[in-house]
Amino acid sequence: MKAHIWVTLKPTVLDPQGQTIQHALVSLGYNNVRDVRQGKFFVLELNGTSREEAQKQIERIARDVLANPVLEEFRYEILE
Amino acid sequence: MKAHIWVTLKPTVLDPQGQTIQHALVSLGYNNVRDVRQGKFFVLELNGTSREEAQKQIERIARDVLANPVLEEFRYEILE
Repeated sequence: MKAHIWVTLKPTVLDPQGQTIQHALVSLGYNNVRDVRQGKFFVLELNGTSREEAQKQIERIARDVLANPVLEEFRYEILE
Repeated sequence: MKAHIWVTLKPTVLDPQGQTIQHALVSLGYNNVRDVRQGKFFVLELNGTSREEAQKQIERIARDVLANPVLEEFRYEILE
């Protein structure tokens, strides 16, 4: 079973890395790039569990290990 | 207009960061996590252009700025 997990800064948290990229893009001539936010993307492969069990596990992994719940939020999808 | 861009290591390229996370998860008791790959995820906001123009621009930005084409590949989606 495969899972995709996105970890991104909460919308209210400043993203200096994204801002740096946005400034770089404007200076390269991409003047219409108004905002850039950067996050992390994980692909996990799990050995055989049920979809329900995988879902619980992925939520725990994302919350406890991959994301910092003070600053970040996550979403995930489970693929077959 | 909003775009999502995923930048990930090519499948043939080793991902030591992903491996470290996989080992950490196993040592935390998530024994069935067989593989972890980590990538980057970007959200760009563009000021009014056509969808076709945005698509060309996003491809150029991803290829020339966000991804290292030797080691990484990218995919994107354009949202309204």
